Amino acid sequence: MTINSTIALIEQRVSANLFEDSHILTDAEIAELTRLATRAPSAYNLQNWRFIAVRAPEAKARLRRLAHGQAKVQAAAVTFIICGVLPDHASLAARLHPFVEAGFMPSDMASGWQEGARVQYDDPQTARDEAVRSAALGAATLIFAAEALGLVSCPIGGFDTDGVSREFGLGPNEVPVMLVAIGRSLPGNWPQKPRRPLTEVLELS
Amino acid sequence: MTINSTIALIEQRVSANLFEDSHILTDAEIAELTRLATRAPSAYNLQNWRFIAVRAPEAKARLRRLAHGQAKVQAAAVTFIICGVLPDHASLAARLHPFVEAGFMPSDMASGWQEGARVQYDDPQTARDEAVRSAALGAATLIFAAEALGLVSCPIGGFDTDGVSREFGLGPNEVPVMLVAIGRSLPGNWPQKPRRPLTEVLELS
Repeated sequence: MTINSTIALIEQRVSANLFEDSHILTDAEIAELTRLATRAPSAYNLQNWRFIAVRAPEAKARLRRLAHGQAKVQAAAVTFIICGVLPDHASLAARLHPFVEAGFMPSDMASGWQEGARVQYDDPQTARDEAVRSAALGAATLIFAAEALGLVSCPIGGFDTDGVSREFGLGPNEVPVMLVAIGRSLPGNWPQKPRRPLTEVLELS
Repeated sequence: MTINSTIALIEQRVSANLFEDSHILTDAEIAELTRLATRAPSAYNLQNWRFIAVRAPEAKARLRRLAHGQAKVQAAAVTFIICGVLPDHASLAARLHPFVEAGFMPSDMASGWQEGARVQYDDPQTARDEAVRSAALGAATLIFAAEALGLVSCPIGGFDTDGVSREFGLGPNEVPVMLVAIGRSLPGNWPQKPRRPLTEVLELS
């Protein structure tokens, strides 16, 4: 039962286009969705992400204009701007501290991870890749959490990233990786789009 | 019930380090995991990903050497190399064709999406970001599918990307975005690492 319901959710999820625009999520519900999204994995437990929950009418209208006018950005109860943060190895001390304090991780291991992160993200492209990767893992977890709570979602990649950074106050170390609209489905959404055959995408080695 | 089991899975997931090394997944089980992973969303339904399932002992040993010798790469039943593919707008015709044929998407909309993708991914950084994003969304879905099937997983970002590309035959348009080890848990894995407080990562707008 546990098994089948999550599998069914994965199998049946669609990217919704039509949202019930009178539906509202409370700030507590939005916080709960975000809490679940942050259960996603991240490299070194960096948690290099930030979630901007756009739910006020004026803010949604502004975000819609930056997303080619896509109506779902405004019709959904909330549209998240999922930001990836360029990894800062120095942040790891604080991120790992509670785990060291709790006796799970030796403190020299935490220092070793920090040094590993310093070396790994010295290359700017690698750092950017990690920001995109962490944000996408967080976004996927947010999507599954929303589905599990009976909501629908739509990840959106087509938007003015510079405009979003400027108008929503992203820091210079933050990348607006994707938008995720979440709300209640209206009738008429498309079924799941067809997937490529496994023979095209799976290689056994 | 449906709701709570997926939420519990999201809340309880950990990145496992210790895998039962005698445990094997059949090729059919690996195919099923991959089928589920490809239910992930992708921009324009590009499905710009490829999954290399490394499960033969020799191949796992080779991959382990390219991943700083991390034992879990070899101990897990399978370690996937999740590749993101630089988006090719021309591929969209085939990807959307079954949806047009089935009468859901008007053919001029499919052409419009193709043109949208051509313009959007003309910039190389944007194209690379999309490869990383799609692969990460696929990886997250793979991880949740594995968890739902009673397995454990570990996403791995620390590996020699050039070495993996060379030794596992990735194409010039393919980015090895992450590894995901999947198998059966041994006792002794860490609990979930602490998460940052929501006040640090959530902004309401």
